Amino acid sequence: MFRFFYFLILLSLLSYSQDEAKISSQIKSFYDFSLTNGKSYLWLEHLSNQIGGRLSGSLNAERAVQWSKEELENLGLDKVWLQPVMVPKWVRGNFEYASIESSTGNSISVTICALGGSVATPNRGIRAEVIEVKSLDELNEIGLDRISGKIIFFNRPMDPKIINTFSSYSGSVNQRTRGAEEALKYGAKAVIVRSMNLTNDDFPHTGSMYYGATKLRDRIPAAAISTNGANLLSSMLKLDPKLKFFIKQNCQNYPDVLSYNVIGEIKGSEFPDKIILVGGHLDSWDLGDGSHDDGAGVVQSMEVLNQFKSLGIKPRHTLRVVLFMNEENGLRGARKYFKIAENKKQYHLFALESDSGGFTPRGFSFNSSDSEFDKIKQWEKYFEPYFANKFIKGGGGADIRPLREFGTILSGFKPDSQRYFDYHHSSKDTFDGINKRELELGAAAMTSLIYLVDIFGF
Amino acid sequence: MFRFFYFLILLSLLSYSQDEAKISSQIKSFYDFSLTNGKSYLWLEHLSNQIGGRLSGSLNAERAVQWSKEELENLGLDKVWLQPVMVPKWVRGNFEYASIESSTGNSISVTICALGGSVATPNRGIRAEVIEVKSLDELNEIGLDRISGKIIFFNRPMDPKIINTFSSYSGSVNQRTRGAEEALKYGAKAVIVRSMNLTNDDFPHTGSMYYGATKLRDRIPAAAISTNGANLLSSMLKLDPKLKFFIKQNCQNYPDVLSYNVIGEIKGSEFPDKIILVGGHLDSWDLGDGSHDDGAGVVQSMEVLNQFKSLGIKPRHTLRVVLFMNEENGLRGARKYFKIAENKKQYHLFALESDSGGFTPRGFSFNSSDSEFDKIKQWEKYFEPYFANKFIKGGGGADIRPLREFGTILSGFKPDSQRYFDYHHSSKDTFDGINKRELELGAAAMTSLIYLVDIFGF
Repeated sequence: MFRFFYFLILLSLLSYSQDEAKISSQIKSFYDFSLTNGKSYLWLEHLSNQIGGRLSGSLNAERAVQWSKEELENLGLDKVWLQPVMVPKWVRGNFEYASIESSTGNSISVTICALGGSVATPNRGIRAEVIEVKSLDELNEIGLDRISGKIIFFNRPMDPKIINTFSSYSGSVNQRTRGAEEALKYGAKAVIVRSMNLTNDDFPHTGSMYYGATKLRDRIPAAAISTNGANLLSSMLKLDPKLKFFIKQNCQNYPDVLSYNVIGEIKGSEFPDKIILVGGHLDSWDLGDGSHDDGAGVVQSMEVLNQFKSLGIKPRHTLRVVLFMNEENGLRGARKYFKIAENKKQYHLFALESDSGGFTPRGFSFNSSDSEFDKIKQWEKYFEPYFANKFIKGGGGADIRPLREFGTILSGFKPDSQRYFDYHHSSKDTFDGINKRELELGAAAMTSLIYLVDIFGF
Repeated sequence: MFRFFYFLILLSLLSYSQDEAKISSQIKSFYDFSLTNGKSYLWLEHLSNQIGGRLSGSLNAERAVQWSKEELENLGLDKVWLQPVMVPKWVRGNFEYASIESSTGNSISVTICALGGSVATPNRGIRAEVIEVKSLDELNEIGLDRISGKIIFFNRPMDPKIINTFSSYSGSVNQRTRGAEEALKYGAKAVIVRSMNLTNDDFPHTGSMYYGATKLRDRIPAAAISTNGANLLSSMLKLDPKLKFFIKQNCQNYPDVLSYNVIGEIKGSEFPDKIILVGGHLDSWDLGDGSHDDGAGVVQSMEVLNQFKSLGIKPRHTLRVVLFMNEENGLRGARKYFKIAENKKQYHLFALESDSGGFTPRGFSFNSSDSEFDKIKQWEKYFEPYFANKFIKGGGGADIRPLREFGTILSGFKPDSQRYFDYHHSSKDTFDGINKRELELGAAAMTSLIYLVDIFGF
């Protein structure tokens, strides 16, 4: 009897290690494929260089919709469709100029860009004295009397001491998103915000900003200034507090326009009604071509399904790629997707988003129950040979966040974060900032995770 | 009695965790310093942009010797000195040209560069038919009759499926180092070698090559061809096996010249005779400015001592930085250093080399006994907050390798390897390929490891 149990245990151990070996071998095939025959890099070359920046509501965004739909159709998926969604249309215009004018009459131009959603300046521009602050709270301390009629200069740098640069970003970005809304309450005429960038350079970084419930006529223009420009302005203000800042920009908000989420799927062989989602966002800012944000996530997500098809793996669950529209300035695509999924009572088992750049993979973050995370943690070993085995608790991504309400397990692909904010939302975010192998390793890591979710379920 | 033991255990646990907290706090201070006040990036800017490529025996190499000696002196170390060493002097010359000439008379030029140490072609160049091979072994299969009078084209690519690109490099580099020596035995007139590069581009990558015991008059020229050039030549050969390759280069070997290892140290307060060494190599190839190979390692090593001085940490052991000369084409500096250390019976406890580029840190490799490695492994936890906690067994670096004979524990700094061979030994290895934060994180990781070795010893 004892021997029999021993035999059973041995057998199960043996089959367990055989399973592990089989899984490891399958994962190696994803990496081999991605690094030799994967499509992610060629796809991104097209999206970045042939289409380019694709701000919601732009012609390029629609070209990206059509192109990605065609490419998904070429993969021979079971279903590819467009999900209509109304998106904001903001246009940068053709004029952005700023200069620092010393009280002795000298003028020096600095590089700025309008923040996404900002109103224009009057045609003659705005010329005013500047008050430098580090936080929203300081406005209250300084008060309406002193702020009224001036330009507020938000100059809190991203903290270089924080190792994960996304945490550093989170600690500084409220100046950009909410600076104008707060400053206008104190009578400011405009706001300029230090670019969310850890490098000292001349590239201004745009990004979303919101006026809250502020009436249109009360809104004030908001622009980002490059880090070099911010450092210059700050040091000049110390010597010459009465200097004036001149800013002129002619960006404009238009009525919402029709756009689309692009969706493709492979039907599950065992659980066709349980969806495993992988995605990124198809829209980008307009200054660069959005190669890292989020062209990389788009082509990596497409590559996951390409690998299942190319390697002849039939998923047990329905495998769905979603290329969300309008992540950058509205999240309309994500909301629409969620609403339709809710109405149709679609069950989403798992959702993975890649929206942290196409850099060398480090691992994944997970938003799940503790017991689910404990289970997922056991998969780390499969990623160790690829140096992508850092599994942490954390969010998934802005587009998939609403799905958590369904109980969906969310995951974010986590590449190395050090270089991300050199590119993010600036004209530096172009295809030459992409390393082919780093991009492909990310696609392979994502495919491997989706594969594990599919075979083990929850 | 029992209570007393319990109290003792509690006390030791408490002091243990207090120690850990103190160490973690000290390590955080290294990272904070490196990312805000570190000198590594500014130093590298000077070494790369103001001095530039510094091949052994060149004027630039001597400028780098003088500059780094001065910078170490400026740190206020206890001792800074130059260690004389005779190094080879090979000069690229001012002419490198190659073209593919089809049998129908068309000609297309391709980018090549002489391999370091190669002889020149005759003044009129060499024009010959080409035999493409993938390995040294193939030469024997093809045989002297067919090879005689031809150019051998070594075209084995680095394997893209290997995740650690240094392993991929090791699997291909013998074509470059030993290709000419082998091919000349079969009567080849020259060899061209596919560049050690995982990207398809137009940059040829140089590197060391050796003729072994071959007499001077029997040596044949060796050059690297860019990966695009290699792909073109290979595909043309399939259609037109009788095409000819033309190559002309006028590089030259000169007699050895005097150069130096640059050394600085802080005397140990408790164990002045036990040396902890940190270093990189000061020489580089001549095509780029050697920012990653190995300017990064040089400034990171200097930064380790800068941090000890700046933060007022007095090491228990003697802390020595060594900037080795002539790693690339001879290792003369390393040999000289070893010989002098042996003669003077200097005890080296530990040696750390940074010679894998200035990319985002992953961890360290160690060449030590198993029990020493077990001890070192326990330090991984201190590097986890910085994503640099991958401690593996492996070599240290070419310059410190001889020290293993003394029983010295060797360690290699291991940054992410994906982008390294895009730059390595080519004109792309310039300062703009360096990310400031990635470089600084490496310097902080190295300082932290040296600090742990110093406080714990072995």
